[in-house]
Amino acid sequence: MDENLLGIIAGILTSVSMIPQVIKVLKEKNAEDLSWMMILVLISGLSLWVWYGFIKDELPIILSNAFAVLVNIVLLICCIIYKKR
Amino acid sequence: MDENLLGIIAGILTSVSMIPQVIKVLKEKNAEDLSWMMILVLISGLSLWVWYGFIKDELPIILSNAFAVLVNIVLLICCIIYKKR
Repeated sequence: MDENLLGIIAGILTSVSMIPQVIKVLKEKNAEDLSWMMILVLISGLSLWVWYGFIKDELPIILSNAFAVLVNIVLLICCIIYKKR
Repeated sequence: MDENLLGIIAGILTSVSMIPQVIKVLKEKNAEDLSWMMILVLISGLSLWVWYGFIKDELPIILSNAFAVLVNIVLLICCIIYKKR
């Protein structure tokens, strides 16, 4: 299989699997189960993956990790907003 | 920065961020919040990433995604065991 296509399919699958949690948190307006500390660790790791993707010049890695960074920034914002209550 | 070192650090950070959820599920013996459907999608995506890593011959991608596959298989088993109750 073409490696870029493989990477894109892999990226879509791992990205899709994150959506339900975001929807759940946004819907229930509850971020009790999320740890902002872990989200920060995750965002750091994912950002390094994006950097790695740029160095290696691999679009699937850049795109899927950049998407994951966005999703986790949304989760982090939810954590901050909903935990204050 | 050396790209392999960068990938390894990125992999460690994204792997570490998964540990608390597994510990929480194992400790509380509760997998209510987990969707086995999404875990299956995630395992498929991560497995494709491992495959991608083999094609590209990139050890950081293989190792971090293989670890994530293992973690999610544990979560899937927890889902099956704890949801039956």
